[in-house]
Amino acid sequence: MRPLVAVDWGTSSLRAALLGEDGKVLEEYASARGILTVEPGGFAPLLIAANAQWMRSAGTFYLLCGMVGSRQGWLEAPYCPCPAGFAEIASQLAWVELDRIAIVPGMSCEDHGVPDVMRGEETQVFGAMDLLGLEGGLFVLPGTHSKWVRAAGGRIERFSTFMTGEFYALLRQHSILGRTMPQDDGELHEGAFRQGLDHARRSANLLHAAFSARTLALFGRMPEAALPSYLSGLAIGEELRSQQLDAGRQVVIIGSSALTLRYELALAERGITSRRVGSEATWRGLWAIARTLQGQQA
Amino acid sequence: MRPLVAVDWGTSSLRAALLGEDGKVLEEYASARGILTVEPGGFAPLLIAANAQWMRSAGTFYLLCGMVGSRQGWLEAPYCPCPAGFAEIASQLAWVELDRIAIVPGMSCEDHGVPDVMRGEETQVFGAMDLLGLEGGLFVLPGTHSKWVRAAGGRIERFSTFMTGEFYALLRQHSILGRTMPQDDGELHEGAFRQGLDHARRSANLLHAAFSARTLALFGRMPEAALPSYLSGLAIGEELRSQQLDAGRQVVIIGSSALTLRYELALAERGITSRRVGSEATWRGLWAIARTLQGQQA
Repeated sequence: MRPLVAVDWGTSSLRAALLGEDGKVLEEYASARGILTVEPGGFAPLLIAANAQWMRSAGTFYLLCGMVGSRQGWLEAPYCPCPAGFAEIASQLAWVELDRIAIVPGMSCEDHGVPDVMRGEETQVFGAMDLLGLEGGLFVLPGTHSKWVRAAGGRIERFSTFMTGEFYALLRQHSILGRTMPQDDGELHEGAFRQGLDHARRSANLLHAAFSARTLALFGRMPEAALPSYLSGLAIGEELRSQQLDAGRQVVIIGSSALTLRYELALAERGITSRRVGSEATWRGLWAIARTLQGQQA
Repeated sequence: MRPLVAVDWGTSSLRAALLGEDGKVLEEYASARGILTVEPGGFAPLLIAANAQWMRSAGTFYLLCGMVGSRQGWLEAPYCPCPAGFAEIASQLAWVELDRIAIVPGMSCEDHGVPDVMRGEETQVFGAMDLLGLEGGLFVLPGTHSKWVRAAGGRIERFSTFMTGEFYALLRQHSILGRTMPQDDGELHEGAFRQGLDHARRSANLLHAAFSARTLALFGRMPEAALPSYLSGLAIGEELRSQQLDAGRQVVIIGSSALTLRYELALAERGITSRRVGSEATWRGLWAIARTLQGQQA
């Protein structure tokens, strides 16, 4: 296989990795030069700078994923409709430079005439499947906009976005609920977090459940320092409420441990076991897509 | 009955009315001096200023409701637990000045160990019942924090708060969804509003449904000018989703027509008829509480 530089270029960061033949990470690079910081025409120089210290052979292949393929990015890559696997993804790459630099398409799916989209997460799911030797399953990628992804037979069948991280930040920073809370979130108060999960599930409506973060403080039934954890439990609990989590089901959580710990706790509370895959999922996904592409071209 | 000055003193405004023996409004006064603008010790002078132009007899009774009875207000009035009617409310007034100036208590109720509260809305519900000759029913008071109130036998039995107005403002002003929307909400796009109601009901989770305001714009399936109406439909639809709205049920909407129109539309969409009562509900409620008090004292 040709030398591969895998690039995860998102809204607020740029990460790259030089991968060996077997997909192993040889070297990594990271900077805060997310796509929002890049002027038109600035993508190519930044990518070269990111790779300057690496030995580059003429045959190196650059495969990129993430928001770099959005309208605000380097080149708009299409959304590949669900269901799709490696083959569909590899055949719909957006080529910045033929046979040398390509961007992985995002994915889209339809729910009663309303579209949903993701960019970058599809690569992580493919990578997690490859790493864990899975052909399918239920995956969650926690974040500003969490994604729940279902796959089977090596293809992503459907997914849904939940604006959990963004809602939490809005309520924390700009709502009346934030006013009675300490400036910093501090450590996780597990009891308060679980209480939040529980109340979200019972209320079945965040517009109502969120108000309890105010009344519990008002009646002195929860210490102020525990309120951010409670609110976090309300938000994550609301996200989990809409998932079909049958007993005995396993969920793969993809993300850094800082983000995934609360999801592990919340799933365990529902009797669901989980496995975690970290940022290596992106590199493995890009490698697996490159491998498929090479197979198609051979 | 003694001359009554009814006062609705909220977070951001002060309204007062001189009422006749039969509860009719003789004169009204309004200013932007909500409780958040009042320094300690400043409540009495402002109340006197509000009434300066009215003939005041020695026997005038001042009855106040709203956030003026909160911890940040003039005097903290208790929360009267549900169920409660005129009798319980009248016997738990917080007296600023004995036999002359009193604040109506707020109300509280418990839902699985989590409290809910309101201040001012209880007075509006009592007023609406008195105006419409009802002993009970289902009431909604749209706003930053909407209240749904159930009453029977002349008493408020339970209620729930929904942070609908606040969530809408947060999403509109501070979220990624607001970025693709025009600065001003503009006129209501009824089609987009109904589409929002519909999607909220089907999604059954605002964390998920809200993302559609982004994807519909991304795919060019909704004009930008219609997006605020769509988001408003999502928020109000989410609030309505949690109400038991049996066919044939009538709902009383309390509020100014600017706020209530969308609720009328949303309820009609569900086959629910509604009646509207405006700001006169507050004056009538205060008058009815004063009448009950006089009866108790007689």
